[in-house]
Amino acid sequence: MRIGVLGTGMVGQVLAGKLAEIGNDVVVGTRDVDALMARREEQRPGVPAFATWVAQHPAVRVATFAGAAEHGEILLLATSGQVSLDALRLAGAEHLAGKILIDVSNPLDFSGGFPPTLSVCNTDSVGEQVQREFPESRVVKTLNTVNAVVMTDPGRMAGGDHHLFVSGNDPHAKSRVKELLSEWFGWRNVIDLGDITTARGTEMYLPLWLRLMSVNGPAFNIKVVVE
Amino acid sequence: MRIGVLGTGMVGQVLAGKLAEIGNDVVVGTRDVDALMARREEQRPGVPAFATWVAQHPAVRVATFAGAAEHGEILLLATSGQVSLDALRLAGAEHLAGKILIDVSNPLDFSGGFPPTLSVCNTDSVGEQVQREFPESRVVKTLNTVNAVVMTDPGRMAGGDHHLFVSGNDPHAKSRVKELLSEWFGWRNVIDLGDITTARGTEMYLPLWLRLMSVNGPAFNIKVVVE
Repeated sequence: MRIGVLGTGMVGQVLAGKLAEIGNDVVVGTRDVDALMARREEQRPGVPAFATWVAQHPAVRVATFAGAAEHGEILLLATSGQVSLDALRLAGAEHLAGKILIDVSNPLDFSGGFPPTLSVCNTDSVGEQVQREFPESRVVKTLNTVNAVVMTDPGRMAGGDHHLFVSGNDPHAKSRVKELLSEWFGWRNVIDLGDITTARGTEMYLPLWLRLMSVNGPAFNIKVVVE
Repeated sequence: MRIGVLGTGMVGQVLAGKLAEIGNDVVVGTRDVDALMARREEQRPGVPAFATWVAQHPAVRVATFAGAAEHGEILLLATSGQVSLDALRLAGAEHLAGKILIDVSNPLDFSGGFPPTLSVCNTDSVGEQVQREFPESRVVKTLNTVNAVVMTDPGRMAGGDHHLFVSGNDPHAKSRVKELLSEWFGWRNVIDLGDITTARGTEMYLPLWLRLMSVNGPAFNIKVVVE
């Protein structure tokens, strides 16, 4: 499958690497390819410069946001939530129309240090902003409640016996994403929360997630336990 | 133990009823006792008027917020988060000083319908507001991530194999609350998230909780699954 991954940070790297490894044709999109490939310092401790990473993942190609979006039959939005709309504007509405857009982004604002605050919450969410501005895209919010290493390998904890969530207005897109999450990464337990406004719930879970990360490290998730 | 429960809604009823049932001396506090006892209509479907409820729980007494706060060696704040500070002002700082104050409240604003938004979040929380305004109280935020019926009976799901959280600035108060949660209700798995600012995390989890409630009904909780 032709997949466009928008974003070159840790989340974009891990998703693109796994999707290419299992045989997909993956193009990663960025704002300025030359500037990206010129940077050699680590993005942050443990996260290599994209140029370093892609040299070790030759099956993955890099292009502009527009090039990656045009390439993909399905798109994954793996930027910071603070620049999600900017990235999609550069990708171009014509390259998003009719396509499933898996929104993994969270509106974390680290400008005040750790823990970050959210740059949008409570009465809106990145998921909703994206669906509003690109009404012809089929936005499904998911994967944003776990660390990148858990996104692509849920089985590393409790044999995968924990939950992921999907939010979106298009039931067929959500069903397809649930299938893909299973095929690609092995997700077995995915809860449909409802329309895209429910993305507020998963984005606003991040402040709790960040505190749990301080306790547990990043490789954890939650299981919904019912009566 | 002498316990003051501030708030007469479903949460206050369930907590007060259980605490009295296991032998504590419980006084429930309200703004206006006469007005409260005069109301006979259900608070909402399934939640009786306090007067109806207390007639069936004769071991529980009712008093003003100040009376209940003065009575309690330990206090539970079970009002709506939107009126938490008002209730505590009426309770009186002199009746809070030095005491553990278990803050169960969430700042849910239903004025716009369901789902509610939060009246404070992101850069502040009810837990922090309470600790700031009553610096001599020993605030521990907990129990606010589950429905009242789960608060007092975690064993009803998965034998209690799921998690509760505590947030607060006083380590001794948090340790004591963890003991009490176990003695009173049987909570075995309680995660200390850190200081009172971590209450933002549990309060901001409510939008996800509310959507999960729409899927599962109110009797559920989350288990943190680690590697």
